[in-house]
Amino acid sequence: MTLSIKTTRQDCLERDARDPLAPLRDQFDLPAGVIYLDGNSLGARPRAALARATDVIAREWGADLIRSWNTAGWFELPKRLGDRLAPIVGALPGEIVVTDTTSVNLFKALAAALDLQRPHAERKVIVTERSNFPTDIYMAEGLARWLDRGYQVRLIEDVTELDAAVGADTAVLMLTHVNYRTGRQLDMAAVSAMARARGAVTVWDLAHSAGAVPVELNRDGADFAVGCTYKYLNGGPGAPAFIWVPRRHQEAFAQPLSGWWGHAEPFAMAPSFAPAQGIARALCGTQPIASLALVECGLDVFAQTSMPAIRAKSLALTDLFIELVETQCAGHPLGLVTPREQAQRGSHVSFTHPHGYAVMQALIARGVIGDYREPAIMRFGFTPLYTSFTDVWDAVAILRAILDGQAYDTQAARSAVT
Amino acid sequence: MTLSIKTTRQDCLERDARDPLAPLRDQFDLPAGVIYLDGNSLGARPRAALARATDVIAREWGADLIRSWNTAGWFELPKRLGDRLAPIVGALPGEIVVTDTTSVNLFKALAAALDLQRPHAERKVIVTERSNFPTDIYMAEGLARWLDRGYQVRLIEDVTELDAAVGADTAVLMLTHVNYRTGRQLDMAAVSAMARARGAVTVWDLAHSAGAVPVELNRDGADFAVGCTYKYLNGGPGAPAFIWVPRRHQEAFAQPLSGWWGHAEPFAMAPSFAPAQGIARALCGTQPIASLALVECGLDVFAQTSMPAIRAKSLALTDLFIELVETQCAGHPLGLVTPREQAQRGSHVSFTHPHGYAVMQALIARGVIGDYREPAIMRFGFTPLYTSFTDVWDAVAILRAILDGQAYDTQAARSAVT
Repeated sequence: MTLSIKTTRQDCLERDARDPLAPLRDQFDLPAGVIYLDGNSLGARPRAALARATDVIAREWGADLIRSWNTAGWFELPKRLGDRLAPIVGALPGEIVVTDTTSVNLFKALAAALDLQRPHAERKVIVTERSNFPTDIYMAEGLARWLDRGYQVRLIEDVTELDAAVGADTAVLMLTHVNYRTGRQLDMAAVSAMARARGAVTVWDLAHSAGAVPVELNRDGADFAVGCTYKYLNGGPGAPAFIWVPRRHQEAFAQPLSGWWGHAEPFAMAPSFAPAQGIARALCGTQPIASLALVECGLDVFAQTSMPAIRAKSLALTDLFIELVETQCAGHPLGLVTPREQAQRGSHVSFTHPHGYAVMQALIARGVIGDYREPAIMRFGFTPLYTSFTDVWDAVAILRAILDGQAYDTQAARSAVT
Repeated sequence: MTLSIKTTRQDCLERDARDPLAPLRDQFDLPAGVIYLDGNSLGARPRAALARATDVIAREWGADLIRSWNTAGWFELPKRLGDRLAPIVGALPGEIVVTDTTSVNLFKALAAALDLQRPHAERKVIVTERSNFPTDIYMAEGLARWLDRGYQVRLIEDVTELDAAVGADTAVLMLTHVNYRTGRQLDMAAVSAMARARGAVTVWDLAHSAGAVPVELNRDGADFAVGCTYKYLNGGPGAPAFIWVPRRHQEAFAQPLSGWWGHAEPFAMAPSFAPAQGIARALCGTQPIASLALVECGLDVFAQTSMPAIRAKSLALTDLFIELVETQCAGHPLGLVTPREQAQRGSHVSFTHPHGYAVMQALIARGVIGDYREPAIMRFGFTPLYTSFTDVWDAVAILRAILDGQAYDTQAARSAVT
């Protein structure tokens, strides 16, 4: 999409007026006076979540008590939610469970991938990017250290090194599809094909992809994937994550966290583990029902639109943001980190600024909520379900006012924001 | 406590009238017409949980959004709740985190225990009971298989075999303190001392102990422990579990699920894992905040009483139940599974009946909610915070009416109840 560099606020109002996704904003509870550009970290609350929580707490737990494992379908929730999530990431029914945390699911997927490679004793390397979200690297390190069979994690500095890094010694290529800091999106089809051609198994982290950009796991030949429901999918703070195992890998899929929810007959109380058929073998223990149930409220909103519609608006929003920052804040030391090319972009945009942390604190104080990541990176997430074009205009106007007036405190103490 | 075998309902009413814990019942939401004897599987809902859920969903998530990681203390919840839980199980502050599932925490504890034993290459056996809750066995199997260094799981049929089963080849003795089917309680101090004397590390599962019976982890010399918050602790369906690592083991504690929440500097985004000091190294990934926050509502009730007071009433309730069943239902083929000796008893009582499943379904249909476990075992949980002596009398009266009238359907289809 080409935009005039003279976009006005009136233009933004008009774009909102003809935006087919604009009505979905009413399905979210957004606080007054806030422009929320951090849905890439914690998605906003679907209005329906409060009533759903009340129903789970008061009726399902309080009134129906233990019976709700059957009557409310608690035991089936991981699979039922997985099936609802499947079309958003190009998966089939029976290929996803919503369960545990992204880190724990990554452990399962990596362990299963290494297990697939055990016949190939020479394949001992897990390749990933140094700029990957750190927990992914830490989980790979933990797995390699504990197996103690010579596995190692190879960190590449940049995706341009992928070609050289993946070879005959590579067991697994573990990548995050959209980088958490830069917002750069990888070409899943091309990278998966390259890895497969070289005998490596791919494990994809969709934390910043699911609900943000079109993902076609099966079409693009991924081997395993994990992801998060509390960012673009609006599942609630720390909502359970997901794991995808395609049908072609399910029969061979084995993972060490072999708890009773992954057993073929969980209520037979057999004294030895036998894995369930299908995706259930990726489950482990009893899930946090209150948090898990709320995931459905976010998925209900996605059911009213499509990923192509979301992608079209996402690109329009990020294009607009880049254009407005570069024109209205010209002269300030801002550096675009996110790729300009649409195909390489996720749904958040990052700019560096020498005082990035202080500028972000000033933005938050004025109601524009983004976040900050070392080093010097301000992240702004654009969530087409509830972010308007006028939000973008207003956010940049506030950013400009802060920068022009140097209205930020470079001595501000840093504190943790996930 | 000695009870007359001629206990009447009036006696029960009088005992309720002088029960110091009776006022706490008002802090729970119990449905009318139900005698809930399944708090050992899913604890009842503290009344405060609904308001707390509303606050978490509407204000912390909906209004404060990402800022709640700091302002609502979300990131500190696992440790803060662990410190509140600590006195209930005889632990010190800084020794417990509430996080993940019991199965996942057991994996961490078992892995850490095996790691402590690595200098002793001859210790390759994890000893446990065949009658342990199956997921514990499955997790041990999964760990042993995955490490592939010759570890094996040795199942004993009965605790009388413990003496013969724990020896020079034993790495870990993994036991559940109160058995999930029989309600038999082990002597943690004696068993831990025996294991330690033989060079084995103990891992205790407190799923049916925490909040049910006095537990003194440090005093009794346990090495590691895990447990559940959704049974006697009334944390909500599938509420996050806990793991205990005593201070003396924390420096050496290492576990393979080394996610960013267990990192020394989680927000430094360093490309290599370095464990946090203290109990935080038992954490892994982002926790389900809605479910986690509700755990506090149950702990708030415990703060108003003490485990000795709870134990005194628990024993009085289970004594009364055993007495009433054996006198009022005499002549029916009921077999007491739970130990008569108080010191060997948890807070639930199990009876076998040839048609146990059908009888339990009839009880549930008449508002007496217990549960059923293979083979032929009816379980009745007694939760002193909200179970009255009159509840016990009424439940047995209904059981008697069902048995006397053979008012149960032996053809009833079985379905899953956790």
